[in-house]
Amino acid sequence: MPLQQFIQTYLPAIEEELQAAVAHSQAQHYAELHKMMRYHMGWEGEGAGPKATGKRVRPLLVLLSNAAAGGKWQNALPAAAAVELVHNFSLVHDDIEDNSPLRRGRPTVWKIWGLAQAINTGDTLFTLAHLEIFELRRSVSAEIILEAANLLQQTCVHLTQGQFLDISYENRDDLTLDDYWPMVSGKTAALLAACTELGAVVAGSDTTIRCAYRNFGRDLGLAFQALDDYLGIWGDVSETGKSAASDLVEGKKSLPVLYGLQQNGEFAARWHQGPISPAEVPALADQLAEEGGKDYTQRQAEHLTTQALDALEAAHPQGQAGEALVKLARTLLKREV
Amino acid sequence: MPLQQFIQTYLPAIEEELQAAVAHSQAQHYAELHKMMRYHMGWEGEGAGPKATGKRVRPLLVLLSNAAAGGKWQNALPAAAAVELVHNFSLVHDDIEDNSPLRRGRPTVWKIWGLAQAINTGDTLFTLAHLEIFELRRSVSAEIILEAANLLQQTCVHLTQGQFLDISYENRDDLTLDDYWPMVSGKTAALLAACTELGAVVAGSDTTIRCAYRNFGRDLGLAFQALDDYLGIWGDVSETGKSAASDLVEGKKSLPVLYGLQQNGEFAARWHQGPISPAEVPALADQLAEEGGKDYTQRQAEHLTTQALDALEAAHPQGQAGEALVKLARTLLKREV
Repeated sequence: MPLQQFIQTYLPAIEEELQAAVAHSQAQHYAELHKMMRYHMGWEGEGAGPKATGKRVRPLLVLLSNAAAGGKWQNALPAAAAVELVHNFSLVHDDIEDNSPLRRGRPTVWKIWGLAQAINTGDTLFTLAHLEIFELRRSVSAEIILEAANLLQQTCVHLTQGQFLDISYENRDDLTLDDYWPMVSGKTAALLAACTELGAVVAGSDTTIRCAYRNFGRDLGLAFQALDDYLGIWGDVSETGKSAASDLVEGKKSLPVLYGLQQNGEFAARWHQGPISPAEVPALADQLAEEGGKDYTQRQAEHLTTQALDALEAAHPQGQAGEALVKLARTLLKREV
Repeated sequence: MPLQQFIQTYLPAIEEELQAAVAHSQAQHYAELHKMMRYHMGWEGEGAGPKATGKRVRPLLVLLSNAAAGGKWQNALPAAAAVELVHNFSLVHDDIEDNSPLRRGRPTVWKIWGLAQAINTGDTLFTLAHLEIFELRRSVSAEIILEAANLLQQTCVHLTQGQFLDISYENRDDLTLDDYWPMVSGKTAALLAACTELGAVVAGSDTTIRCAYRNFGRDLGLAFQALDDYLGIWGDVSETGKSAASDLVEGKKSLPVLYGLQQNGEFAARWHQGPISPAEVPALADQLAEEGGKDYTQRQAEHLTTQALDALEAAHPQGQAGEALVKLARTLLKREV
């Protein structure tokens, strides 16, 4: 069974589990609260549909890891839904914190319903995520549920720590490459590590295998972020869908930018002068490449990709799900399309 | 052992447990994140101390309920700390949602560190709360921890639902008394119900006793809120510490106000004209009393107080802790000082 077929099997089950989780204790009084959540999840309102829901990469990783670790993927559905809800809670709050008016081409929750309701809607999604993980009781033991719930909470601490750094970095001019990794470890890699580890935990894997799955998810997240940062400056617009200029124009302190700042050359001099216009981007991207930022980022992405695929191999993923998991990783990391 | 002695025994242990929970995975990178949490919890920064921490009524209720249900109070410390962290998470977010510059006489977190960091600091406290409940593993079984953790999450759903209503009500002019109870059930009563029930759950009480403790906490919360609403208009300033005028001037849609609006008399007519000045308050408070709002609120508070004390009796609280719990309830509900 190829990856695409796994996705076609898993996705409807994931959506059903998510919808049930969000409908939890639904009552007439709270109709509008549910509407805000359903809008954000991409199920209703203008622009609802597959583009608005996102690709559900995280829950897919949970289910594939679970199946590849020898589990029955249906048993892992609550864990899959829980991580997706955590991800979406963080997006609702991120959008407020970053003052973003749009998410996946649609107005953000705070833009439509205001700040107060948006904060509270994020809190509700967060709570529902952690309530959802207890649904594992349908098929696994209390001990395993506790491990899974504890793991998810620990992950949320890392998420908030990463978010704290991300917010702090906005106003800092003294950042070095050393500041990059703790931030992306929290913001991106922690939740992906939780996805793959949760799959193994629910499958009842032993510590060694569990740890390998965890490392795979973490390195996948780090590699993905390094690649994303690369494409944010040198990507092909037709492939990435976003202007390659955007990261420089937005002033994002990405991996190549931090590398460039550390060189303290012409790139850094221009960066410190203030906002960069789209017209300046091609020359500045070349300058950064000349100072080594492009090679450095590419090397990091490749190194982390190799590390991720090695970790996955060490996890001994089984059967067709195992093959599909390798394929998904390679696709996300642009080794295959 | 009188109530005061229980408090003197429990409070230092509660603070110690809370401090350990907040210090979880502390690292140099996140020093400022910890500072924000420690400031909000009342432990550091200007004005730190007992006035800034609040009275810790919720964790005291957990421990007293636990001891009165025959438990060993030390075992319930993680549950006590968890509810206090949930309470404080909600305060950090409430202050943003209500645009409040002050909390217990000190600048609020968002006022000092800005919106983005404040939202994220609230999220961190929320996560740490749910992580803390797993510390129950030091002394109780996985089954009981799962029950406690599930109960706390369910409570958080109610909290966010109550908060949703509270925010919605600000812009509504069609509210009736029926709208009051779901809101205060979520905002005030749900967490107090969780406190007393958690005490019983950790003590291993059977369903009947557990339910009685839960009802006690819920009715205590509702009675307390009705009383607070009464005092917010007809209270003695020297006793309540806040201007008796404040609820009318602030336009708070409290129980007596909703009663008055439902009468559709002179009080309602004046209310609908817009903001009320402090000078108008005495006459308007008299008008509301004349239309029955004062009697109604007092009757509700008394009825709920009786109900709360009856529920506590049905829980058969044991020993000196049981007596202290009755005393605490009566003190909170102004039956005794």
